[in-house]
Amino acid sequence: MPPTPQWVKDLKPAPPQGTELLSAERDKSNISVEQLSNFLFTKEVLERQDRVLEILQKEKVFDKSQNYFDGRVDKFKTALARAKRLRQLQVQHKWDRDDYITANDLISEPGPYGLHATMYLTTLEGQGTPEQHKKFLEPAQNYKHIGCYAQTELGHGSNVRGLETTATWNPEDKTFILHSPQLTASKWWIGSLGRTANHAVVMAQLIIEGKPYGPHPFVCQIRDMKTHEPLEGVHVGDIGPKFGYNTMDNGFLLLNKLKIPHINMLAKFSRVDPETNKYVKPSSPSLIYGTLTWVRSTIVLQSGGVLARGVTIATRYAAVRRQFQDRDAPSDANGENQVLNYTMVQFRLDNADFDDLVLPLLAATFALHFTGKAMMGLYQESQKTMNANAAKVSSNRGAGPEEISSGSDLLADLHATSCGLKALGSTTAAEGLEVCRRAMGGHGYSSFSGVGSWYADYLPTTTWEGDNYMLTQQVARYLLKSARGVLQGNAPNNDTTKIFTTFLQKQDMGAAHDVLGSDSDLVAAFAWRTSFLTFEALKHRDVEKNSWNSLLVDFWRLSTAHSQYLVVKNFYDALQSESLRYELDPATIDVLHKLFRLYALNTLEKEASEFYSSAAVTVRQIQLARTKSVMKLLEEIRPHALSLVDAWHFPDWQLDSSLGRKDGKVYEDMFYRASELNPLNGLTIDPYPESDVMVKRDETAKFKSKL
Amino acid sequence: MPPTPQWVKDLKPAPPQGTELLSAERDKSNISVEQLSNFLFTKEVLERQDRVLEILQKEKVFDKSQNYFDGRVDKFKTALARAKRLRQLQVQHKWDRDDYITANDLISEPGPYGLHATMYLTTLEGQGTPEQHKKFLEPAQNYKHIGCYAQTELGHGSNVRGLETTATWNPEDKTFILHSPQLTASKWWIGSLGRTANHAVVMAQLIIEGKPYGPHPFVCQIRDMKTHEPLEGVHVGDIGPKFGYNTMDNGFLLLNKLKIPHINMLAKFSRVDPETNKYVKPSSPSLIYGTLTWVRSTIVLQSGGVLARGVTIATRYAAVRRQFQDRDAPSDANGENQVLNYTMVQFRLDNADFDDLVLPLLAATFALHFTGKAMMGLYQESQKTMNANAAKVSSNRGAGPEEISSGSDLLADLHATSCGLKALGSTTAAEGLEVCRRAMGGHGYSSFSGVGSWYADYLPTTTWEGDNYMLTQQVARYLLKSARGVLQGNAPNNDTTKIFTTFLQKQDMGAAHDVLGSDSDLVAAFAWRTSFLTFEALKHRDVEKNSWNSLLVDFWRLSTAHSQYLVVKNFYDALQSESLRYELDPATIDVLHKLFRLYALNTLEKEASEFYSSAAVTVRQIQLARTKSVMKLLEEIRPHALSLVDAWHFPDWQLDSSLGRKDGKVYEDMFYRASELNPLNGLTIDPYPESDVMVKRDETAKFKSKL
Repeated sequence: MPPTPQWVKDLKPAPPQGTELLSAERDKSNISVEQLSNFLFTKEVLERQDRVLEILQKEKVFDKSQNYFDGRVDKFKTALARAKRLRQLQVQHKWDRDDYITANDLISEPGPYGLHATMYLTTLEGQGTPEQHKKFLEPAQNYKHIGCYAQTELGHGSNVRGLETTATWNPEDKTFILHSPQLTASKWWIGSLGRTANHAVVMAQLIIEGKPYGPHPFVCQIRDMKTHEPLEGVHVGDIGPKFGYNTMDNGFLLLNKLKIPHINMLAKFSRVDPETNKYVKPSSPSLIYGTLTWVRSTIVLQSGGVLARGVTIATRYAAVRRQFQDRDAPSDANGENQVLNYTMVQFRLDNADFDDLVLPLLAATFALHFTGKAMMGLYQESQKTMNANAAKVSSNRGAGPEEISSGSDLLADLHATSCGLKALGSTTAAEGLEVCRRAMGGHGYSSFSGVGSWYADYLPTTTWEGDNYMLTQQVARYLLKSARGVLQGNAPNNDTTKIFTTFLQKQDMGAAHDVLGSDSDLVAAFAWRTSFLTFEALKHRDVEKNSWNSLLVDFWRLSTAHSQYLVVKNFYDALQSESLRYELDPATIDVLHKLFRLYALNTLEKEASEFYSSAAVTVRQIQLARTKSVMKLLEEIRPHALSLVDAWHFPDWQLDSSLGRKDGKVYEDMFYRASELNPLNGLTIDPYPESDVMVKRDETAKFKSKL
Repeated sequence: MPPTPQWVKDLKPAPPQGTELLSAERDKSNISVEQLSNFLFTKEVLERQDRVLEILQKEKVFDKSQNYFDGRVDKFKTALARAKRLRQLQVQHKWDRDDYITANDLISEPGPYGLHATMYLTTLEGQGTPEQHKKFLEPAQNYKHIGCYAQTELGHGSNVRGLETTATWNPEDKTFILHSPQLTASKWWIGSLGRTANHAVVMAQLIIEGKPYGPHPFVCQIRDMKTHEPLEGVHVGDIGPKFGYNTMDNGFLLLNKLKIPHINMLAKFSRVDPETNKYVKPSSPSLIYGTLTWVRSTIVLQSGGVLARGVTIATRYAAVRRQFQDRDAPSDANGENQVLNYTMVQFRLDNADFDDLVLPLLAATFALHFTGKAMMGLYQESQKTMNANAAKVSSNRGAGPEEISSGSDLLADLHATSCGLKALGSTTAAEGLEVCRRAMGGHGYSSFSGVGSWYADYLPTTTWEGDNYMLTQQVARYLLKSARGVLQGNAPNNDTTKIFTTFLQKQDMGAAHDVLGSDSDLVAAFAWRTSFLTFEALKHRDVEKNSWNSLLVDFWRLSTAHSQYLVVKNFYDALQSESLRYELDPATIDVLHKLFRLYALNTLEKEASEFYSSAAVTVRQIQLARTKSVMKLLEEIRPHALSLVDAWHFPDWQLDSSLGRKDGKVYEDMFYRASELNPLNGLTIDPYPESDVMVKRDETAKFKSKL
């Protein structure tokens, strides 16, 4: 491609400029962006972000300018170089775990060490004995071993029990023989396995003397430590391109009677006694429960931030784009009235449409953030209680059964809560990102919007750590159990049983929730709907004896209703907190309060039929919620939208988006990337069909990132 | 990557094999797949498909095996080679337009000649004079000129009136000067422009003596016919990667005072008189209306097929996957009951879930197909009427004003209908594809599922030919106008006014639609709901004087309701047709009838609140629709699901999907593609962070497709 001519370089976007528009928009809001950022994340976290960002930006390998152009192989090569450099920086700057996570968040792509740094280390740590820690964990911590966690199989998704890979105990030489008896036994989707790992924790069916003992974890070396070629009896590789996540080498693994020593079975919870050749049963599986609950709480907290990226980009672009439309509005056309009307309509729609679609998502980002924070708090509390009780038990200071069960009751409640909220949070984030992308019109489809790849990379979150559909059943099961407990008078005292009790008491009088006038009534209406749906489902199940299967849709709805109640309640609780009043000025609190009402009333209106068929509210109230309250809130929040997304504090470097630039130079950036960074423009072709010459000049290679 | 070892080659999936499962599943259904295919597409069309497919499969350039692996530049190079070869084949085999479209459908990717073969030729044809046809159309038809249609601009999306590019009439030398005054004037998103076209129809604001006359089309040469380099004063290139559509070179274009002769303004409808330097006004803009209506009808028809691809893949994979789960069901585990229960639940969910999600989409594919066919029929009818009337007028045989208006009434009705149905059809297809992808669990995320890229390529359809949100307002505007006409007693007699009249007559008595017992009542309930929403909106607008803007959500709902009514009605009408009874046996008709009821009742249940707040049905009926009718229909249709998707008649070559293979060899195909075709496995890396060596061995290049 010839160099950009001077007359092109001289061009500017039509006035007003994006920079002016965004700064005018920021002037409209009186909320304190910095205060709000500090309140959301703490000053310490924001300073950490600045410090790490400065280091990353200086390194050529983290330059993102070719990210959207690279094909799979180049994407992976670059991601590997980044992963290595990141580890070097971690050592060099003595980064702690939070620093390292911050760096990964800023880089914003899954990397080849991803599963090593998380699942492999965690599994060794949590399930290995001290001897195994020495042998496997230490070299892994020093990146001598690079590992992964190999559970899922080609034919089996997340079904642990159905795993086909076997680990047969061989009493003669005290080894295990790991084997893939069939093609469907191939490990599949395993992150970091495809090209990177030289070790794997392989989940396999333990077999002792012909008898199966279910899936257990085994440490396997899979590649040569020097040549990095697969070992004899190991067939391993990358599973190919995916809808997203292409910087990661998700892999497959087949094993042909691979022999590993006794010590390679992770033995903290269950093991094979090499003397007796007997299986020793697992202890305390509830600890794993705890970890899953923790992971899910993290997903809820993150879902707010994940969605906020899309909302930030869409809101900034809308503030630039919208003004163009206003500018166009006065008519100077002649004659072609049809086209004119058509156009005018479109403009008005684009605005209203944007508000209708994106501002409720903006409210959801805060709602999810506060909910995630509350869950992390609860989790830590439950761990404290459990540990304290365990200490009492082990020190024989005599913890009663009640105390122990109170710890596990809390965990059971949190477990159920985390399942439903993980499903709601990740679904809201994934679907919300797609709404943001579409709200940007045509340009949302460009990779330079920064939303498409972010969405595609995020999608698996709706599946892993429990498929969202499946999780909702665990919630329903828990709610039904709690409801039975309340009816039988033997339920533990927690928020769930409290709202059920309230519902049962008032059920015959009916509710009179003043959802438009009172915040606490708004929360109560969500509690009422959840309770109603629970007792309806209970009736279907226990009285009408419907099959579980036939109630799946009801359960999905019930779980969603329950999680929405929790989000509304957590948002409400956050607004009542002391620290909020201490850290934020009244104007900012006022806008947060409007966001709470928008989230709640918009959800209420979207789920209208459940709210009025449960008699939580009347049809008239819902009509008013939409036509009066929500419309008014949209109008009131709109002037603050840009400041609210600013408070999420995403550096431009992280967003990597033309449309989401903080300075509003949207069109300049789009044009620059297309015209100057785009390798395809290095290709000059022969366009005529009868010519078999395809390419006249190919200078695409010079765009390749040099590492 | 070392060659695949023999022990890997010997592995088979766990039994039962996919092939056995699919053939057992096919045996369950007694419908005649071949009859149904012929009824849907005609024998002639299917034979055409076979003929063209045979030719394409023989050509190495159309080999798809590297499609999912290629990066942007390689994707484009391959697509160009295919476009050229396709044109050569078209000439060689004397393919007509339908043959050519069939070939493109089978190849299933947008190609660099795409906009030349459609928009460029059509625009020249439709808007050029005979002299211009000679000068521009003929070389374009012979691929001497390769063209594109340059309307959208960087700052302006689909807003024609806001275009910034100017075409200033220069009376001195009788030329136009085309100019991009600002960066935002850059043409953007223009298909085939980025690297391929040497000509463009540029939409620019016509200016004569300082006065603007709105946007008009100008033919511009933009690249040298020999070197293919941009001409002086032209800055042109590809706009960069997108969420999908990456085989197409969507481009940008800036013009610096480019001079073109008078003949380059397409002058069939309006022109500049070179003698007087005056603007001559356009005639008959409604013809363009007609074309848009035609394009939208095509989109509706296609939306059925687009969705059917996803449904075919998801259904076939489910039939293979499901059996694994049944096989797993009997328990032989010991102790770990928690995991067992969890797993069992998941299995049951996966099945029920699949039916709930995907079978209604299967019904939608047929519903949309029949609706699209009906629309095409209506369009052709309206064209006949208009042409006949025009002939009467021009031959002075005295067409009354009534006859002329009856032609344009029909067109207005069809225009509004096509807007709403285009929006509903493309939204249903796009969102349905994503549902199909997710219904396949983890493997749906693999590129080899064949659904992700298909979805990503289809997404723009929801935006182009009128953004779906915007289109719904045109429908609402039309419905309000028709309702006013009915109230004032001066409405034309068509189906829309008929259902409004019925509604007004019965409104006070209330409706008693037996939706569970009678098909025609089911259709009538949809008509009732549409009518109710129309008169509600009319009240808000005309009586309560609400602003247009505040009613956008109502309009969106109204348009959706109206389009759903039309789809239900068209499906119902198709079932009443003579040809159906003639061509299909009773068993097949019976299943189609069940699909009709599933589509209608499932929609009714999903839109429950509108149906009962309009009193079209009772709450009890809706409950029964879900718990009894829909559940029963799902069960009854399930055994035929595989045969029904088979009737859509997609060759494996077209689907290019591991999961959607007709023979059920799902896992073998997944494994083969990952292990044998995946270039990333040609890369052997150095995994250690302290080593600056990234790659030990790079054999990725040998996977590149050789053209």
